[in-house]
Amino acid sequence: MKKLINSPESVVADALRGMAAAHPELRVDAPAGIVLRAGGAPAGKVALLSGGGSGHEPLHAGFVGPGMLTAAVAGPVFTSPVPEVITRATAEADAGAGVLHIVKNYTGDILNFTMAAEDAEDEGVTVEQVVVDDDVAVAAGQGGPGRRGTGATLFVEKIAGALAESGAPLAEVAAVARKVNERSRSYGVALTSCTTPAKGSPNFELGEGEIELGIGIHGEPGRERRPLLSAAQTAEAMLAAILEDLPQCAGDPVILLVNGLGTTPPIELYVMRAEVERVLSEHGVTVARSLVGNYVTSLDMAGCTLTLCRADAELLELWDAPVETPSLRWGR
Amino acid sequence: MKKLINSPESVVADALRGMAAAHPELRVDAPAGIVLRAGGAPAGKVALLSGGGSGHEPLHAGFVGPGMLTAAVAGPVFTSPVPEVITRATAEADAGAGVLHIVKNYTGDILNFTMAAEDAEDEGVTVEQVVVDDDVAVAAGQGGPGRRGTGATLFVEKIAGALAESGAPLAEVAAVARKVNERSRSYGVALTSCTTPAKGSPNFELGEGEIELGIGIHGEPGRERRPLLSAAQTAEAMLAAILEDLPQCAGDPVILLVNGLGTTPPIELYVMRAEVERVLSEHGVTVARSLVGNYVTSLDMAGCTLTLCRADAELLELWDAPVETPSLRWGR
Repeated sequence: MKKLINSPESVVADALRGMAAAHPELRVDAPAGIVLRAGGAPAGKVALLSGGGSGHEPLHAGFVGPGMLTAAVAGPVFTSPVPEVITRATAEADAGAGVLHIVKNYTGDILNFTMAAEDAEDEGVTVEQVVVDDDVAVAAGQGGPGRRGTGATLFVEKIAGALAESGAPLAEVAAVARKVNERSRSYGVALTSCTTPAKGSPNFELGEGEIELGIGIHGEPGRERRPLLSAAQTAEAMLAAILEDLPQCAGDPVILLVNGLGTTPPIELYVMRAEVERVLSEHGVTVARSLVGNYVTSLDMAGCTLTLCRADAELLELWDAPVETPSLRWGR
Repeated sequence: MKKLINSPESVVADALRGMAAAHPELRVDAPAGIVLRAGGAPAGKVALLSGGGSGHEPLHAGFVGPGMLTAAVAGPVFTSPVPEVITRATAEADAGAGVLHIVKNYTGDILNFTMAAEDAEDEGVTVEQVVVDDDVAVAAGQGGPGRRGTGATLFVEKIAGALAESGAPLAEVAAVARKVNERSRSYGVALTSCTTPAKGSPNFELGEGEIELGIGIHGEPGRERRPLLSAAQTAEAMLAAILEDLPQCAGDPVILLVNGLGTTPPIELYVMRAEVERVLSEHGVTVARSLVGNYVTSLDMAGCTLTLCRADAELLELWDAPVETPSLRWGR
C-alpha cells in the first residue's frame, strides 16, 4: 500500500485538518469529524446536513458552503459516523427552520442518521430525512436494502441547497430533494479496486486485462467482469444500464456527472465525457449541464461513475443558482 | 496499461472533444489542438496564450476563460505543439493589444513557441514570451536548460490573466508574469511513475516501499529515492528543498498549490495540505491563499507537487480577481 498519509488511524482527522487549513470559511472539528459553514446557516433558513463514511472526498465536506450544505459529518473510512456526532452537528447546523438530512442508502448510514434524527427531535430540532438511492447496479424493491447512494448525492445536495438558500420551508426542500433522487440514476466501472488504509490490500483483485462493471463506491465488487473495454464501449455499457432504468429520458434535458473514483486522470475523464456525449445524442438525450472530475471518490479506485438526472425548468434553475463551496462554485 | 481511452493515437483529440462537450463557452478545434474562449479576448485587451504537450490536464485548456487564458494549444502527449498551430492560435487570440506567450521551460516548447512568435510577428501580431521555470529539483544557471516549468504556470496564468482583464498593456502583463515566476518555486514527489499511452509501460520503476523525490511532470526520474515516507516527512523534505531556493519567504504571505499528479486521491492531498501548513508555520511562513487538487498532472502518476509563490499586495489582489474557467473559478 502506497499512500501519502501518516497512519491509517489518523487519516480522516489529518485530511480534515487540511480542509481547515485550506478553507478558513469552514469551521472544522477534525477529531469529531464535523464541518460547518463558519457563519452557520442564515437565520430562519433550512439547514442541510449530509455525511457518511470517509473515503469519498470531496463528498461531503467539500460541498459545505452557501448554496449547498450547512454541515457535513465524516465517519471513519467507509464507516458511518455515530449517531451522537450526527445529532450534535444537526443541532449546530439548525438555524431555526429545521434540518434536512441527506443520507446515502446504506444500512449503517440509515440506522445512524435515523437514530440521530430522533435524538435531535427530542432536543427540539425538526429533521426530515431524504434517502439517496441511484445506483442501478443494485436492483431496487426486491426485499434487500435496494439501490446504493452514489453520485446523485451531489445533485440532491446542490439543488436542495439552492432551494433552502432561497428561504423555502423544510417540507419543500425535502420534496425537491426527493424529486432529484427519483429522477437520477448512476452506474460505475472500475479498472482497479481500492485499498482501505486499515486493511492495506485491495478489496478485490482485477487482472491487467479486465474491467469490472457495476461496482460500488466502497470497493463492492461489480455485477459483471469483462475484458478491458475502450472508452467508447465503456460509455455504451454504462449508459445502457442507466437508460434502461431511467426510460423517460429521451427529449428531456439531463444534468450529467462524469465522476472520477479517485485515481482516474483528468484526460481520461474528458475522453469519457466525449463518448458519453456521443452515446446520449444517439439516444436523443440532450445534456443541459455537466460536471467532469473527482466528486464522489472511492479512495484510490481507478474508474468512473456516470450519473444522469432528468431535469426540468425548476431543477435547472436551482442547479444554476450560485454556489460557493470548496469543490463546487459558480456565480450567476 | 489500463486506461479509459479509445486508442493512444486519438487520446488527445478525444479528450478535447470531451472539453468541447462539457464547456460550450469554449471554442475547441480538437484535431488541431486549439482551445479558445468562444467570444475571444475582449477587444483591445491583451490576450494570453499558453500550451505545451498534453498529459497535464487541466493545464492548459482548463484555464481558458475570462480572467485567465484567452487560448491554449495542446500538443501530443508530453510533446510540444508545432509552431504552425501556435502561430494560428496566436493570431486567433489577438484582440489588437498583443499576445503574451506563457511557456514552460522545456527545450522543445521554447524552440516552437519562439518560432511561432516570430511568424506571428511577421503577420503583424505583437508577441511577448514569458518562460516559467520553478522546479527546484533541477538547478538553474549551470549551462543546462535550467529549472523546469511546473505548478507556477498556473500562478502566472491566473495573475497575468487578471491584469490583462483589467486592460493593462502587454509590457505590464509580461512584467507581472515574470514577477510571479521569479517569486515561485516547486518540488514534486512520486509514489509511481506514469505510463504514456503510446509506450504502454511506466517511464521508470519504483518499488512498493519506495518514494521518488524531485521528479518531473513528464516521467523524468527524481534526484533521490528513499524508503516510503509519511505525509509529514514528505512535506518536510519537499518544503526544505523549496525554502532553500526561496529564502526570503519568512514574513511574506505565500500562495500555495498542493497539486495532485493525476492519480492521487483527494483525501491524501488534504492530508498533505495539513502537513504543509504545519511545516510552513514552523518556518514562520503564512499561507494567504491555497489550492488543493489536480491542476498540473502527469498522466497517471501518483504523487504530488508543491508550489509556493511569495505574494505581495499586488499579487494577492490579482489572485483574488474573478476568474471563470472550467477548472478555476470564483467571483469577488
